[in-house]
Amino acid sequence: MAMEVAQFDALVLRLPENVLLLSGFWPMIGAAFLVFPLDGTPVCIIPDCYKAEASSALRSVQPVFFSYGLTDSPPSDDAVRKLLSALPGALNWRRIGYEAAFEAIAPSWNSAESLVPAAGTVSLLQSAFPNALLVDASGLLKKERRTKTKYEISRLEIASEISAIGLEAFQHAVDVGRTGVELAADVEREVMVRATGYRGAVRVRAYAQVTVGPEETSLGYRPNVISTTRQLRRGEIALLELGLVADGYWADRTRARVAGTPSELQQAYFDTVVLAQEAAIASIKPGISASTVDMAARSTIQSAGFANFFPHITGHGLGFGYHESAPILGPRSQDVLEAGMLTSVEPALYDSSFGGIRIEDDVLVTSNGSKVLGPYLKSLI
Amino acid sequence: MAMEVAQFDALVLRLPENVLLLSGFWPMIGAAFLVFPLDGTPVCIIPDCYKAEASSALRSVQPVFFSYGLTDSPPSDDAVRKLLSALPGALNWRRIGYEAAFEAIAPSWNSAESLVPAAGTVSLLQSAFPNALLVDASGLLKKERRTKTKYEISRLEIASEISAIGLEAFQHAVDVGRTGVELAADVEREVMVRATGYRGAVRVRAYAQVTVGPEETSLGYRPNVISTTRQLRRGEIALLELGLVADGYWADRTRARVAGTPSELQQAYFDTVVLAQEAAIASIKPGISASTVDMAARSTIQSAGFANFFPHITGHGLGFGYHESAPILGPRSQDVLEAGMLTSVEPALYDSSFGGIRIEDDVLVTSNGSKVLGPYLKSLI
Repeated sequence: MAMEVAQFDALVLRLPENVLLLSGFWPMIGAAFLVFPLDGTPVCIIPDCYKAEASSALRSVQPVFFSYGLTDSPPSDDAVRKLLSALPGALNWRRIGYEAAFEAIAPSWNSAESLVPAAGTVSLLQSAFPNALLVDASGLLKKERRTKTKYEISRLEIASEISAIGLEAFQHAVDVGRTGVELAADVEREVMVRATGYRGAVRVRAYAQVTVGPEETSLGYRPNVISTTRQLRRGEIALLELGLVADGYWADRTRARVAGTPSELQQAYFDTVVLAQEAAIASIKPGISASTVDMAARSTIQSAGFANFFPHITGHGLGFGYHESAPILGPRSQDVLEAGMLTSVEPALYDSSFGGIRIEDDVLVTSNGSKVLGPYLKSLI
Repeated sequence: MAMEVAQFDALVLRLPENVLLLSGFWPMIGAAFLVFPLDGTPVCIIPDCYKAEASSALRSVQPVFFSYGLTDSPPSDDAVRKLLSALPGALNWRRIGYEAAFEAIAPSWNSAESLVPAAGTVSLLQSAFPNALLVDASGLLKKERRTKTKYEISRLEIASEISAIGLEAFQHAVDVGRTGVELAADVEREVMVRATGYRGAVRVRAYAQVTVGPEETSLGYRPNVISTTRQLRRGEIALLELGLVADGYWADRTRARVAGTPSELQQAYFDTVVLAQEAAIASIKPGISASTVDMAARSTIQSAGFANFFPHITGHGLGFGYHESAPILGPRSQDVLEAGMLTSVEPALYDSSFGGIRIEDDVLVTSNGSKVLGPYLKSLI
């Protein structure tokens, strides 16, 4: 890591996604603090109720536990402050990096509540390290997240293979009369039940959003859509947006299906999207600009005569979260692809009368090209 | 609101939970900004793809939309900055309150990603309002959240009634051979499918954690537990922790069930927990100290001879999130109950050889006592 360049004496992190990045341990909530010094052994300060999970997951990091959440536990800020102050060398640290600028936060497995670094964290760190300057380390962490290591890729492959289980569940569940809410709930249930334990995955959760019919699917480009109780009618499209986390590693997939037999126009739209995705994926390799990959998809769609129906970017980075900022596959992107980057590739067509179709897979940039993680059938039927 | 006392000229908020608090609109993600001036009409700046939801939900708040997430959208920070700067009177604001100190964040419906106010938000606000001082308004907002309005109570009742649907699904699903993962997935699915549309609820999501058997349930006091693939055996306890959100309003429930016939000891533990919960609820009324309510539960457990088996507090506030900081029903709490407060009441017993049992309901402090929202059967069988 470029800590020396950035002149940090230590990083102190609490977002589960960044604790995972630097320690291999994905905390259940943001109550654990990872201390990553420039010199010396990293330490993770962890609520004692997570002793079992932490001990088995931490790699090259020393765990320290504190009593948490019980009536006789000291206030946890006090406990953490004491443990931070007592770290070897801590008194000599002058610049400490923390997560000041993470605005998009990945949830933990339960995801009903996230603990994030705000004013309370800053004041905790300042009182634990009164002689140190607290400096934003988000740039360093995001840079570290741009490309994935071999180990991380192996874990991201598991997440993508699990997402294919969700796509399969959707493929089977779509039928006339079913609602978006039912389809989304089915996909989420199937993933949790069938994929927990898959290749060692312990904590698996799917976040499915299913739109049905022209009015809903034509808005399917929205970053978050609501599954509703509207029923799917014969001949209509159902569109699944699937976010998925397996032990802290993310996948992001989309498939479309028709209830019954697709019309010729639906099939033409679908085939165009498939071709656009194939063109984009075929263009991916180290050194190519992200805007060129976007253009590969976009020009395929333009050639088919649907230029106005693809209003969003072709893809985005991901891995330690549902979305990451590098690379962005879009017309205005300045990114250049590097081996080890992971990006979604998700061309689409939306038309208010016809509806929407999108296909999304997660693609790894390899040393000489690309690899689709967790490949799965693309079919309207 | 006490804005005049706090001397804010305006609040600018982006956490969905606080936008809901002050506007009635629960944004899909934290990309909307609510501006709540001391004088004048509140304005909500919203990505245009959420026009339909926002327009129907906003009460006494003027919506302003900006193009979001498309290839021809200007960067959204720029769009928001321009709209903020152009607000009537904005140039005269000297003190602007924002959410500097929210460390526990409630997710939105999709919950795969949260946008939170960090360094980017601060710099956005500072550039939009160069003459204003940005001041933490978390204290004011948390105070506003301490007691619930009549309207909020009606919405929280819907969330609690929906959580009872989840408790019922659990009651029916528990059986020999089933795993915690299966039971949790079933509860989450049933809630989404059966409760979307219930009394007008549009966005419903359950977060279930189910532990089974002595080893797992005896750790059931942990703030977040992991459902596993361990199978429930005859005579063992399954313990459900259920967080639930319905259109931004939360419920937090727990039930225990035995697969088959409970042992005498299990029944004795269970009956003690029921009595402890009843004693705590019976003590709830405006003016009573929260520590007295805790003691009502705790002394019941002590009298039964199980003093060492109840290591956590009796309850906590909730409503705009899974957990809120007021009131805390614990031995060291300084809180005094007020009409309109909502608190969980969740006594429990945990013993490493026996396992764990907890019962949790959400209780409203009324003008002359208390009311359990969404009441549901308590039974081991």
